Amino acid sequence: MTEIRKDPFTGQWIVTGTEGEQDFFTSLALQEKTEWKVCPFCPGSEKVSGKEIYALRTPGTPADSPGWEVRVIVSKQAALQIESDPDRRPEGMYDLMNNVGAHEVIIETPDHIKNLSNLSVDQVTKVLSTYQARMRDLEGDRRFKYSLVFKNQRKASKYRLGHSHSQLVALPITPKSIKDELQNSREYYSYKERCLYCDVITQELKDPKRIVEENDYFVAITPFASRFPFEVWVLPKRHNCDYLRESYDSINNLAKILKGSLLRIEKVLDDPPLNYMLHTAPYLREREGYWGTIRDDYHWHIEITPQILELTGFEWGTGSYIEPLLPETAAQILRDVKL
Amino acid sequence: MTEIRKDPFTGQWIVTGTEGEQDFFTSLALQEKTEWKVCPFCPGSEKVSGKEIYALRTPGTPADSPGWEVRVIVSKQAALQIESDPDRRPEGMYDLMNNVGAHEVIIETPDHIKNLSNLSVDQVTKVLSTYQARMRDLEGDRRFKYSLVFKNQRKASKYRLGHSHSQLVALPITPKSIKDELQNSREYYSYKERCLYCDVITQELKDPKRIVEENDYFVAITPFASRFPFEVWVLPKRHNCDYLRESYDSINNLAKILKGSLLRIEKVLDDPPLNYMLHTAPYLREREGYWGTIRDDYHWHIEITPQILELTGFEWGTGSYIEPLLPETAAQILRDVKL
Repeated sequence: MTEIRKDPFTGQWIVTGTEGEQDFFTSLALQEKTEWKVCPFCPGSEKVSGKEIYALRTPGTPADSPGWEVRVIVSKQAALQIESDPDRRPEGMYDLMNNVGAHEVIIETPDHIKNLSNLSVDQVTKVLSTYQARMRDLEGDRRFKYSLVFKNQRKASKYRLGHSHSQLVALPITPKSIKDELQNSREYYSYKERCLYCDVITQELKDPKRIVEENDYFVAITPFASRFPFEVWVLPKRHNCDYLRESYDSINNLAKILKGSLLRIEKVLDDPPLNYMLHTAPYLREREGYWGTIRDDYHWHIEITPQILELTGFEWGTGSYIEPLLPETAAQILRDVKL
Repeated sequence: MTEIRKDPFTGQWIVTGTEGEQDFFTSLALQEKTEWKVCPFCPGSEKVSGKEIYALRTPGTPADSPGWEVRVIVSKQAALQIESDPDRRPEGMYDLMNNVGAHEVIIETPDHIKNLSNLSVDQVTKVLSTYQARMRDLEGDRRFKYSLVFKNQRKASKYRLGHSHSQLVALPITPKSIKDELQNSREYYSYKERCLYCDVITQELKDPKRIVEENDYFVAITPFASRFPFEVWVLPKRHNCDYLRESYDSINNLAKILKGSLLRIEKVLDDPPLNYMLHTAPYLREREGYWGTIRDDYHWHIEITPQILELTGFEWGTGSYIEPLLPETAAQILRDVKL
């Protein structure tokens, strides 16, 4: 029985009950102990990896067979189920709903390559366009308020899949971290009548000590209040709250700067574990209440977070972070990398 | 140059610049590679471990020498400095201040024992009373708005210190995670005129499926919306927002249930890495503005969070969590442990 439960103390939603007691302890015992003999994401394994939802493939080749360049499947470890109704309801003083949602895996290349940064700019562009295609498709489902694309990239290991992929979830709620950003940028906008992110970009470009890389469309910076050493954000220079509304040209330029930023981080930190998350506005449907009307006060972006330090009780207890390295120092080191 | 910087996008405060480029890469390279030959927290190493701020010791024994039962020192890796002024100021559109604060280490026993749960109830009581003594002392310093006690407990390893200790920081700001809790519980109180935490405790005691352990003063539960498998919270049954205002009897009962809860988690998960954090109200001084007046709507508690699963881009991107195991299942397993 999987449920989405609301934490009464913080308002966060938690997905729980995806595994029973036995499965939980079995998968815990197997953690980092099972070698991948055959890669389920390589061409030829399509029947094993999962049902194809979408693919960029050679005309004439059938679904769930080789011939694809980017392939999207239903996650085998799906925490969320598409065939369900939210049925939001109380349990005493608590709130919960069914685990309705989409959970997809984007296989980013037919080649067995671990890191997105090692794909060609053309291939990365196809991946980023696939994100748009899937998010747009899920926008049609009015049960979903938000869709998030994220990547978990780990160090090479025989216990890791090692085939470049990312994940997409569509959720029946707007996540707390996005709500916090929206509320904050709305407050700023209400006072300044300007976008907070646009103002930050203007300031960073004027005094470029935290700039890692830029092109006509995008800028990559180490944020003023970075949470992690070598954290990098990629932001569009032209105001836009919605990733879905970026042009092909823009996505092509995003591919270049994302690849570049990842390569720089990977060189400096010797291929560290990292995540990236695509922060975009909640689905902008008409008449969807408060959050649905946001346009001028939010700015989509990608956050790349290398994970080289252990979180401590300080971070868990405060929601703050101790980031030993100044972001200006990190930016200088990243800029100096020869690509 | 260490600074506390405000993230303009979320309002979080970040401590940054505690290490220069060279120190950062040196300590990164040494991570999990340096064996501890002599424990600096054992009696006899007092001159090495750091300056004594407070100790429970045999009358007549001098500071910074053996003869203590619990000893508090300035952290050698202090991210915050006591001799400083906040000097909160702008930098363009950003906000920052100096790294003023206290950062102390509480050495919980003269014996070389790794886990708090293996100390006697008497000794744990002394540790918990020491938390009170230090927090009360720092309350006198009006630069500090909040003090947090936390513990990072790791698996046994020759690269880890392995001597039971916790840490205390006093901060010139109220951390975001506490502000979120305060705001949420204030909203609940404003609507119900009852404490949110008291109401949760009442409901949990009525249908005890998430109860791990209880005594006359305290209850230990797996929260309805647990973020982590086997997360356990310890809450006082009698309403109190402030840990400093608990009696000796209460602290003695807290020692019993905290020791019990930790032992249960350690048995089920084979001594996992874990953290605990003491959530209490910001310093309750008069005339300190909004947060200073909180009394009836907050409830101090301890959150114990075992860390056995890797965080993913889902957690970083949403602020939500996927917790595979239902908290009711976890509570049942923890209850069934023979102590």
